[in-house]
Amino acid sequence: MKKSLLALAALTAFAGAASAQSSVTLFGIVDLSAVSSKNGSVSRKDLTNNQLNSNRLGFRGVEDLGGGLRAGFWIEGAMSNDDGNAAGQTWQRRSTVSLMGGFGELRLGRDYTPSFWNYTIFDPFGTNGPGSMLNIVSTLGSGAGTLVRANNTVGYFLPAMGGVYGQVQVAAGEGVAGNKYTGGRIGFAGGPVNIAVALGKTPKDGGLTDDYTDKNVGGSFRMGAFTLMAQYSMRDFANRDQKTTMVGGTLAFGASTLKASLTNSKGAQGSSARDFDAKQVAFGYQYDMSKRTALYGVYSTLDNDGVAATGSLFSIGTGAAMTVGGEKSSGFAIGVRHSF
Amino acid sequence: MKKSLLALAALTAFAGAASAQSSVTLFGIVDLSAVSSKNGSVSRKDLTNNQLNSNRLGFRGVEDLGGGLRAGFWIEGAMSNDDGNAAGQTWQRRSTVSLMGGFGELRLGRDYTPSFWNYTIFDPFGTNGPGSMLNIVSTLGSGAGTLVRANNTVGYFLPAMGGVYGQVQVAAGEGVAGNKYTGGRIGFAGGPVNIAVALGKTPKDGGLTDDYTDKNVGGSFRMGAFTLMAQYSMRDFANRDQKTTMVGGTLAFGASTLKASLTNSKGAQGSSARDFDAKQVAFGYQYDMSKRTALYGVYSTLDNDGVAATGSLFSIGTGAAMTVGGEKSSGFAIGVRHSF
Amino acid sequence: MKKSLLALAALTAFAGAASAQSSVTLFGIVDLSAVSSKNGSVSRKDLTNNQLNSNRLGFRGVEDLGGGLRAGFWIEGAMSNDDGNAAGQTWQRRSTVSLMGGFGELRLGRDYTPSFWNYTIFDPFGTNGPGSMLNIVSTLGSGAGTLVRANNTVGYFLPAMGGVYGQVQVAAGEGVAGNKYTGGRIGFAGGPVNIAVALGKTPKDGGLTDDYTDKNVGGSFRMGAFTLMAQYSMRDFANRDQKTTMVGGTLAFGASTLKASLTNSKGAQGSSARDFDAKQVAFGYQYDMSKRTALYGVYSTLDNDGVAATGSLFSIGTGAAMTVGGEKSSGFAIGVRHSF
Repeated sequence: MKKSLLALAALTAFAGAASAQSSVTLFGIVDLSAVSSKNGSVSRKDLTNNQLNSNRLGFRGVEDLGGGLRAGFWIEGAMSNDDGNAAGQTWQRRSTVSLMGGFGELRLGRDYTPSFWNYTIFDPFGTNGPGSMLNIVSTLGSGAGTLVRANNTVGYFLPAMGGVYGQVQVAAGEGVAGNKYTGGRIGFAGGPVNIAVALGKTPKDGGLTDDYTDKNVGGSFRMGAFTLMAQYSMRDFANRDQKTTMVGGTLAFGASTLKASLTNSKGAQGSSARDFDAKQVAFGYQYDMSKRTALYGVYSTLDNDGVAATGSLFSIGTGAAMTVGGEKSSGFAIGVRHSF
Repeated sequence: MKKSLLALAALTAFAGAASAQSSVTLFGIVDLSAVSSKNGSVSRKDLTNNQLNSNRLGFRGVEDLGGGLRAGFWIEGAMSNDDGNAAGQTWQRRSTVSLMGGFGELRLGRDYTPSFWNYTIFDPFGTNGPGSMLNIVSTLGSGAGTLVRANNTVGYFLPAMGGVYGQVQVAAGEGVAGNKYTGGRIGFAGGPVNIAVALGKTPKDGGLTDDYTDKNVGGSFRMGAFTLMAQYSMRDFANRDQKTTMVGGTLAFGASTLKASLTNSKGAQGSSARDFDAKQVAFGYQYDMSKRTALYGVYSTLDNDGVAATGSLFSIGTGAAMTVGGEKSSGFAIGVRHSF
Repeated sequence: MKKSLLALAALTAFAGAASAQSSVTLFGIVDLSAVSSKNGSVSRKDLTNNQLNSNRLGFRGVEDLGGGLRAGFWIEGAMSNDDGNAAGQTWQRRSTVSLMGGFGELRLGRDYTPSFWNYTIFDPFGTNGPGSMLNIVSTLGSGAGTLVRANNTVGYFLPAMGGVYGQVQVAAGEGVAGNKYTGGRIGFAGGPVNIAVALGKTPKDGGLTDDYTDKNVGGSFRMGAFTLMAQYSMRDFANRDQKTTMVGGTLAFGASTLKASLTNSKGAQGSSARDFDAKQVAFGYQYDMSKRTALYGVYSTLDNDGVAATGSLFSIGTGAAMTVGGEKSSGFAIGVRHSF
């Protein structure tokens, strides 16, 4: 990717903060989509965000400190562009400061958890829209808020070492239930192969009634224009657990990409018959008008288990939660994604 | 207007969003004004925003896709610069993504309604400050939130066709009362003449107790340094309606501009004597220190009808609502507007 | 400090706001720190913002109007980078528009109060972190919100006149209790000396039960690598008053700076034995990796008076308020500050 950076003036802060010349990058994504969804017998139509990628606005930059050391920051917020209203310009998506060098990267702030990355990188639909496998992933009523990100994190990333990559992270709970976290991820990317395994834990002493853990492994294999993706994940909390398997792939031809995935989730609650199994099938088409602008359509349908209890039922789109076990939910999105 | 754009790096989004070099524009307005207002017997003094133009901060950009096609985005938020506090950096003023080409423009997101534009373009005071005719315009207690903007819109704009311009827009209600909307506007601008007619409807099935409609026509005619402006609008809801006539003009000499307007609103509620007529007279002076920085002063006074009921009384400025029929309200603002 | 500015396009606002080419500066600070604090017998650990400087994101710019006149704006918001969540992108830290020329500067909007500056400029730790003398400064339960900033201000700054500098400010209360304000500051900076005196008043008729006043004087004296700082301040409200003395200094060698301060506060409430005296000792070390990036550590400890009542007890860090008179509070922060 080519880059051209802003030359920006730095601030003379009072009380001793000197500053100097710098480069900062403004970036963002606006992704708006017409979504039609049907949950059981209830249908609705919306103009919605985030169906191909998550809308965002951010600033980031790197400063060369000499001697191979660099400092960097990254602040990124969500945007709700369909109403311009919710998800104001706080920097919830990522908000970090880093020191980088031959030793790797030390990163402080609000960041993605290591146990999140396999979910999105090894899903043809990422974490967005009707096709994402996250539609049928549950944190099991644990109250853990660390499926995607955590506050107050200190993280360390390995430096480039052949194709091996890895990171560890701890997050201080600071009295916010479900924010405390310890996790790590290690992987290998080389030639057509990318594979990684991750583990995260939000402990009982972080304000939960029991430990919550997330273990997952994912990979992709490129064969010319076709890329195969697969992942397996296990989440555990008290007497509940969920095991999810996804197989999918993307096929690129010219500016077009076809996507498909099949996800199967097995949920169990102790010895109860109250399981919460679910299956999802998703198809998508993406047309890249340029590297930054894409048109897309995604269709998916999911089946809830017949005996699942209310509150353990999954659905697609933004409608009310489903209440009848065994019902299907489906969604269709057609939209445009523009990044800057 | 000359433009110089930022060269900015685009984001490599995860899950397939490639991106490329781009240009993005940062823009904004800070407009602060000392305002003295008198509503009936109550006076107050404030330092206030938005008295000449609306304060804002935004980013926008256009990408050339080749073949005459372009993609663009526009995110713009309000700023409350007198206290830095309210109206945080959400992108409520406008938040859109567009595809443009020989066919015109397709625009998705939160945007101005077609039925809004005549109100501001054909008023010497726009929609800001003590002089705006909107001071005595009512949405008739309908709950319609579409006088200025709507969420979840899909809009289409005609391409350049001689002097003819036009747009249509629909907005999904998505369960928010008063947001559902259908509207259009068509106009002609050529030589000294600019004229347009618009129609907007927020239907009963968008969460109101009846249909709300807004029909308006406006125009301007340039005669050397003097520009004459006039508009007529009708708003209807249940057994209430309001008809508003405005005549005004601007006279430019050197860096100075004089402005004046006279507005007359007739409000009726069924066969009741509870009408809510009002008249407003406004005078203004603007001195452009540069194209971006202006000093200004505006004075206006309005008369409420003697028998108008509480809640149907109009006022100028930020004081408490007026409660006595027949009372006058007046306001004076002196301020500086700086755009960037 | 070197500067390189953005060339940015200005906005064509509707309703008459023309605009032209401009330069705008983006700036900010991300400062994250691991903080360990102990208040009485209660300890806690946090990842926290603002321990060396206050986190911020802002835009500012100056336009040359010709004839020695300039217009400028400054919008600056706080960032909570440890959770990306609180302190959203409103522009509370500063939000102003200015006209500048040979006459000085006229500034409107939300700004720092004149009576604030001595507190931060003449403290080795500024207003941030465990070392700041503000840890034991009280606004005496007055409800005055003007210790640091005020809304709705109109301010005037003297032009450069030898080493003399000064400013006056009034803030309209606008019905917000404790925001009304009148204040001024005058100082002299020349050679190794910088000294200033300031006075601020938040009057009873601004929604308080009595007048609140803040009088302070501060200075610094540079002797080679060592800079001595001292300040004295008096705050008064009803039958309560507080007098605070601080002596401190900084010693620079290479990229390192040592800091220390000793603060003594005497608080009295009428003839009651309920005084609220407190003492603080602070030590700090800062290592500048570049002009923009610094590593730092700060330790401080404070002693509350034995007979102080609950609510008049001071503490360091973010824990719960202390409740037992005579207890100590201490805090240690180690962090990285990166500005852009």
